Amino acid sequence: MKRPVIFISNDDGYRAKGFNAIVECAAEFGDVIAIAPDDTQSGKAHAITMYDPLYLTLRRDEEHIKVYSCNGTPVDCVKMAYDWLLPKLGLEPSLNISGINHGSNAAINVLYSGTMGAAIEASFYGAPSVGLSLDDHSHDADFDATIAFARKLIPAMLGLIITEPLCLNINVPVARPEEILGHRICRQTRGFWKEEFFCHQDPRGRDYFWLTGSFCNHEPEAEDTDEWALKHNYIAVVPIKVDLTDYSRMKQLEGLF
Amino acid sequence: MKRPVIFISNDDGYRAKGFNAIVECAAEFGDVIAIAPDDTQSGKAHAITMYDPLYLTLRRDEEHIKVYSCNGTPVDCVKMAYDWLLPKLGLEPSLNISGINHGSNAAINVLYSGTMGAAIEASFYGAPSVGLSLDDHSHDADFDATIAFARKLIPAMLGLIITEPLCLNINVPVARPEEILGHRICRQTRGFWKEEFFCHQDPRGRDYFWLTGSFCNHEPEAEDTDEWALKHNYIAVVPIKVDLTDYSRMKQLEGLF
Repeated sequence: MKRPVIFISNDDGYRAKGFNAIVECAAEFGDVIAIAPDDTQSGKAHAITMYDPLYLTLRRDEEHIKVYSCNGTPVDCVKMAYDWLLPKLGLEPSLNISGINHGSNAAINVLYSGTMGAAIEASFYGAPSVGLSLDDHSHDADFDATIAFARKLIPAMLGLIITEPLCLNINVPVARPEEILGHRICRQTRGFWKEEFFCHQDPRGRDYFWLTGSFCNHEPEAEDTDEWALKHNYIAVVPIKVDLTDYSRMKQLEGLF
Repeated sequence: MKRPVIFISNDDGYRAKGFNAIVECAAEFGDVIAIAPDDTQSGKAHAITMYDPLYLTLRRDEEHIKVYSCNGTPVDCVKMAYDWLLPKLGLEPSLNISGINHGSNAAINVLYSGTMGAAIEASFYGAPSVGLSLDDHSHDADFDATIAFARKLIPAMLGLIITEPLCLNINVPVARPEEILGHRICRQTRGFWKEEFFCHQDPRGRDYFWLTGSFCNHEPEAEDTDEWALKHNYIAVVPIKVDLTDYSRMKQLEGLF
């Protein structure tokens, strides 16, 4: 039987531990073709590179695993794959995975996340798409629980027939596999980041700023949200749509200006 | 009477013709505080700068117009404004405008657009927010029709009481003001970009790629879409939401993995 093709990308770059963990795991189920950024591209959202040329470098070439890296954004990696590399190789992925990200992409983080940028972009090309993130930013995070879930997720997603683009935003709490209480289909939590800027002076006396901040959850008690699931040791699964139209407000705007 | 404060940003940078056109127009109605990127940040979507310091430079300092520029992304500009500059100046905007962008941000372009990244981000801080784009990429585009519409839009938006973040994606066709047939409240058109990569060799013999492509409209006949409006000389107004949850698919995912 022909092995399915699984396309993988991420935003932490091809050296990241989370990326290499899911590459190894996916290769148990299919042939992996990956394009990941050369270096970290966290917070790059759905950005594309319009004014610089892109380079592609083969980093790993084994029977069931081919990993390339690209100097562009996560979304550039996906476009390079689907509009250049995969047609050239004659391959059609049955599943897209972006991650495993070092850090949560729950709630409004889905907007800023390069991991989810890649997952969403990949879903446009037809195969189901999954963004996988662990709620731990550290380089040496423990991905065992995420991998245990991925071993159930990947065969289920490979068997799925879809007629519309499908993209899932999956976030995993920090816990050992046996401590995870299961997964919940959730909605995106309402809330925003409250930023603070650290202001310092550079050696030439000019103020410069570092962006930092913290997430304000506007509904911490809402049990159907992804933040609630994460806080209570569940894996949070949010189906994503890319039609940003706020249909509920269309009437209200008639006659306004 | 105290003049309202209007915050302006964009993604083409503070020198762009469209930005300066809306700055002048907005100053007819209120005091303008603007932070725009130092240079072009097209296609930067909702990206934020996590690993570089940000600098802020005062570029224009008049009674009703203050323009700063920042070396970050459009979303960085908004965060710098709301979490640093505006509190320092004791100012609270009543309206946010991002643009006027050189080029359409209708349909799926809303995802890639730095103009819309800034507009969406600004809406999180409470005041109504508008992304304004003209369907013409040229540096010397004619913004007369957009400005004529803005003169109706700005006072209407300044008078609006909202309880939830409000963000509009407004796209203007290329036409003289008198040729515009009015505006339509629309939904985002379904469709995706089909990319092509130009491949060349650099002087060291390495392949490099330029991203290019064209938009495929999946529903060119749908009269309630923003692309249809633009093609038929209407200004397209799409209300935007930032909850990406696809509620229609939550049931279908239960029990899948």
